Amino acid sequence: MLDYFKVPKEDVVIVDVNKLRQVTEHMFIKCGVKSEEAIIGTDVLMHADLRGIETHGVSNLLRGYIQGYNSGQINPNPKWKIIRESATTATIDGDSGLGLMTAYHAMNLAIEKAEKYGTGSISIRNSAHCGAVGYFAMMALKYDMVGTCMTAGGNTMVPTFGSEAKLGTNPIAIAVPTKNKPPFVFDAATTTIAGNKMGLLERIGASMQPGWVAHDDGTPDMDGGGEFQYAHGPQKMQLPLGGTREMGSHKGYGLGVSVDILCGILSNGAGFPTLQASRRAHYVSAIKVDGFSEVNEFKSSMDQMLQGLEDTKPSPGNKRVLYAGLEEYEEEQKRERDGIPLHKEVVEWYKGACEEMNIKFILN
Amino acid sequence: MLDYFKVPKEDVVIVDVNKLRQVTEHMFIKCGVKSEEAIIGTDVLMHADLRGIETHGVSNLLRGYIQGYNSGQINPNPKWKIIRESATTATIDGDSGLGLMTAYHAMNLAIEKAEKYGTGSISIRNSAHCGAVGYFAMMALKYDMVGTCMTAGGNTMVPTFGSEAKLGTNPIAIAVPTKNKPPFVFDAATTTIAGNKMGLLERIGASMQPGWVAHDDGTPDMDGGGEFQYAHGPQKMQLPLGGTREMGSHKGYGLGVSVDILCGILSNGAGFPTLQASRRAHYVSAIKVDGFSEVNEFKSSMDQMLQGLEDTKPSPGNKRVLYAGLEEYEEEQKRERDGIPLHKEVVEWYKGACEEMNIKFILN
Repeated sequence: MLDYFKVPKEDVVIVDVNKLRQVTEHMFIKCGVKSEEAIIGTDVLMHADLRGIETHGVSNLLRGYIQGYNSGQINPNPKWKIIRESATTATIDGDSGLGLMTAYHAMNLAIEKAEKYGTGSISIRNSAHCGAVGYFAMMALKYDMVGTCMTAGGNTMVPTFGSEAKLGTNPIAIAVPTKNKPPFVFDAATTTIAGNKMGLLERIGASMQPGWVAHDDGTPDMDGGGEFQYAHGPQKMQLPLGGTREMGSHKGYGLGVSVDILCGILSNGAGFPTLQASRRAHYVSAIKVDGFSEVNEFKSSMDQMLQGLEDTKPSPGNKRVLYAGLEEYEEEQKRERDGIPLHKEVVEWYKGACEEMNIKFILN
Repeated sequence: MLDYFKVPKEDVVIVDVNKLRQVTEHMFIKCGVKSEEAIIGTDVLMHADLRGIETHGVSNLLRGYIQGYNSGQINPNPKWKIIRESATTATIDGDSGLGLMTAYHAMNLAIEKAEKYGTGSISIRNSAHCGAVGYFAMMALKYDMVGTCMTAGGNTMVPTFGSEAKLGTNPIAIAVPTKNKPPFVFDAATTTIAGNKMGLLERIGASMQPGWVAHDDGTPDMDGGGEFQYAHGPQKMQLPLGGTREMGSHKGYGLGVSVDILCGILSNGAGFPTLQASRRAHYVSAIKVDGFSEVNEFKSSMDQMLQGLEDTKPSPGNKRVLYAGLEEYEEEQKRERDGIPLHKEVVEWYKGACEEMNIKFILN
């Protein structure tokens, strides 16, 4: 993550990983979620917190989920079911449960199908927010498979040449197993930056950068800083990856549409044909490496390729060249050991929420 | 395509579609390619010319292919074979044949597997250039499947923070069937612009735009125009989609690495672990819509969604909002009827090549 988004040092409170996990699980349970499902949901959130993906950890997402449970918008005890199936594919109806849990079960089904037939692909409709899609892609790693996850929903991305937001930030994740090196884990919105980064910006008092949002008339804001009140404006209008047509925004836009199709149109999800802001759906897939190549050879080749990318001579002002998942892996090692740096405002929120929900506050 | 890349009016020669097809097939045959394979290769090139993707039509690619055949680098009569296979996956060795033909056969295999099991995915190693990847993705449309094609190879993309090119432009194509509307066909390089656009720029005497290439030290050129001699420089260094890290270039870079993995590492392709400039491999997949959703309902939903995107209110200075594949479809209708506008220099080349190869020149 860009330093830009990191919690300022003076606002950091270091929190113990196990305690944060415990409190968060309790909160899910207090919302009516079964214990075994609360463990899954918490693990997805903590995955993001551990890997430094602060947009998708407890601080940015948990309070919204609790609101969703309380308002009845999210079903704490969904009866998800397979509504159509082939040897390698399925559509799951999520019964308005949180995607954190439903995508987890869907990915296990994809892996099961891939184990038997080589690939497995599941489209999930009628779901709520999915958290960090990289989590579900990474589930495939220990089975020596390439995992993919996408999620679609909401109206925050402005199509190229347009002046209204019609798509979500529609992220794509791809995880690939390696032998000794940290796995390749790509996880990125098809907008210039993830939607939840807006929340972070507000909390740390930072402004926009060129290419992130559109002006009210749809024109790309290439100066930056012009839309400081983005989060409170009448419409959130993020630019597709690329920013302007000349710099390839039609590519980010096209990828975003592809994600909407695989998640929502393929699963016949509510609101997808009409591009409704309330729509929400996901897509997961697993590809078994052994169906293409000898697994050990593949993983060695991955190590060598990723090392080759790391060995790229850096450009002026940069210390090293990364690959997707490398910095996140390093952060995970560090945070597992040292704890998770939360913004003091988040810890305060936990304290208040614990009081309200009658949970023992143990994060101090 | 941006007007920027179009052949200037005064340099256009309109050429009959069937005549161009006939001459091109003859050229392939003169290079030692079997007639039925020459027809396939020509169709892939003509697909690009018809749809206005001039970077990947006869004008930009054919002469390089002929050189490749003549120098022995491309095998005109490859014995491609399946070297590993599961119910839904396979790795094909292309025996140094042109990807135009090998990816065609691979996609047919993917479709056959998807027909039986729901999905089919094929990785193709030891291949030559693949042409417009959208062609192979579109092969899935008439079977009511979502088609995908990717191709990897060469060293022209600079990893984010790097100062050396390590990846190719690594395009991704996704084609999705519709009911009455032109199909959704996404086909785009994971660099800001396609590599072959450089050839076009040179021919029409245009310069670079900001975010397209890196300076010699790897720093993104955000002024544009600075690297006019790009095509003749010591190293081609294109920026990943996004341009700068702040605008998301790590996303274009990560997508590019993903393409290298699916094409080259998965198929155990030569040169992929060491990122050699000479490496070349492809990946195709087909997903059967019927394995997820009722086909007719899916196609109607696609129509409605794409219409919804088209109905987006345009931003100032723009006539309409497009979706991927719409303009290309319209261009195809027009060019099938009116002929293909080639640059006069390309027609001159055809004339000379026909003389050299003892083929009757019929493009005047």
